[in-house]
Amino acid sequence: MTEITFLGTSAMVPTKERNVTGIYLDYKGEGILIDCGEGTQRQMNIAGINRLKVRTILITHWHGDHVSGLIGLIQTMGNNEKNAETGEKTKIRIFGPEGTKERMQHLLNSCVFQNKVDLDIKEINLKSPELIFETKEYSIEAVNVKHSTPTLAYSFIEKDKRKVDMGKAGKLGLKEGPYIGKLQSGQEVMFKGKKILPDEVSKIIKGKKIVFVLDTTPCPSCIEISREADILIMESVYATNMEEKADAYKHMTAQQAAQIAHQANAKKLVLTHFSQRYKTVEEIETNARDIFPESVCAFDFMKIKV
Amino acid sequence: MTEITFLGTSAMVPTKERNVTGIYLDYKGEGILIDCGEGTQRQMNIAGINRLKVRTILITHWHGDHVSGLIGLIQTMGNNEKNAETGEKTKIRIFGPEGTKERMQHLLNSCVFQNKVDLDIKEINLKSPELIFETKEYSIEAVNVKHSTPTLAYSFIEKDKRKVDMGKAGKLGLKEGPYIGKLQSGQEVMFKGKKILPDEVSKIIKGKKIVFVLDTTPCPSCIEISREADILIMESVYATNMEEKADAYKHMTAQQAAQIAHQANAKKLVLTHFSQRYKTVEEIETNARDIFPESVCAFDFMKIKV
Repeated sequence: MTEITFLGTSAMVPTKERNVTGIYLDYKGEGILIDCGEGTQRQMNIAGINRLKVRTILITHWHGDHVSGLIGLIQTMGNNEKNAETGEKTKIRIFGPEGTKERMQHLLNSCVFQNKVDLDIKEINLKSPELIFETKEYSIEAVNVKHSTPTLAYSFIEKDKRKVDMGKAGKLGLKEGPYIGKLQSGQEVMFKGKKILPDEVSKIIKGKKIVFVLDTTPCPSCIEISREADILIMESVYATNMEEKADAYKHMTAQQAAQIAHQANAKKLVLTHFSQRYKTVEEIETNARDIFPESVCAFDFMKIKV
Repeated sequence: MTEITFLGTSAMVPTKERNVTGIYLDYKGEGILIDCGEGTQRQMNIAGINRLKVRTILITHWHGDHVSGLIGLIQTMGNNEKNAETGEKTKIRIFGPEGTKERMQHLLNSCVFQNKVDLDIKEINLKSPELIFETKEYSIEAVNVKHSTPTLAYSFIEKDKRKVDMGKAGKLGLKEGPYIGKLQSGQEVMFKGKKILPDEVSKIIKGKKIVFVLDTTPCPSCIEISREADILIMESVYATNMEEKADAYKHMTAQQAAQIAHQANAKKLVLTHFSQRYKTVEEIETNARDIFPESVCAFDFMKIKV
């Protein structure tokens, strides 16, 4: 199961209804956190997310509303009782733009505590989207985008999988077992003197692509990283009529985000990171749908099953 | 008007119901914030407190659950539109234990932002309660207490005020005006050839004392700073039966807090900073009342008008 939970959908400042940025991606029980604004660990708790499941944190940039919840989360993860008993350290991979190692060290030095989490920090600086991490089941790509400080956009790409049609396989006399395993992994098998090709009994299930484009002004990298996204999560601090302000602060309007979704041929656009000036975000949603009908505005604790 | 708002009443880790430590004291519209754990600025927003009113922050110690909301609050205060227009910097006095200046600098360096708040930081190290700040209307005292890192307790002491009984003054022929002003400020006046002493027509209204004893193990300083408190706000991470654990982590049980309230002759004890193990805090409240009947457990957004 892949599930996205929006932990905070306000830009810059938390409001009564919206916390600052944090997005949790649950991939088969493993947690990937995109940004960690102040209060994220509590939002996870309220959303029923086990904070100890986080294995990867993707930091877009070091503005406070995207990172100042990191210290609380790292402390809470380190202080969990299981680790206290075994002395084992939870490992967390952290990716972020240039300066991430130094900023993280300042954060760790800002409070009195013994860090019990093993942090593996990598700084990324990429002009075109490239692989930064992969497992057997998924890969993560990143690219620089254009904000007022070094900033990254990320994509999570589930790998394609071959799925055997057990009905078709059964007709050839094949049952669960090593033959099926081989076909599933794309290899041909010899069965009762006959060669069976994987495509005869199985098909490729395309992996899903989820893209996170947070603080940025429109730029070619935004389109490149978003190509063919199943879910494109994108900032839209302002409605379309505020383009001047968006330009000044290197943010996006609903129109700009929707144009990128259209150009990148995304399937669904989810807007987030709204200015506190908007009590409701209907205007932003309407602006986006005028250009890209499959648009929706996120709200805190919204979940998307992918 | 003096009003206390509890912004977070959980120890160490936020729970669904309780955020980490933050207490807001509104003294006639001026804000004094005692500790600023992660999420405090949002709690203020939800409580309807104007974050821009904060003029003084009293930091007890540098454990994350007491300070990691500082960076968000400082950014939000600096970015308010009025300041952006005038270029004026909001001034905030910050008091904290040894190391406060260095830790604050790490916090400021952890995020990318231009600090638009003028921070006046003072480090305090006092074996007995002493004055650290005063205005015409109140004074603040502090003292070291005993936790696992340098930690302070604070008291807010409203100054006594003389109040003229206009009925009594009227009988002597005195009406609003300079004579009343003089009597109010404690001076005698000559009226129609007769000397009038302040005590004849006025009386002293005792100022209220509010004390904040957060993370600490019981120690003589806790009693000294709490003497004759009208409101004594004190940590009680654990119920009485958990004294061993409280000792180990240099915290207090309900019994220990109540004994201090009794020894200090406080009028009312308000317990806070509860371990997340307690889904309800009835046990803690009952334990405390057995020793000090005027005890109550705080909850998030509880307000006390003093």
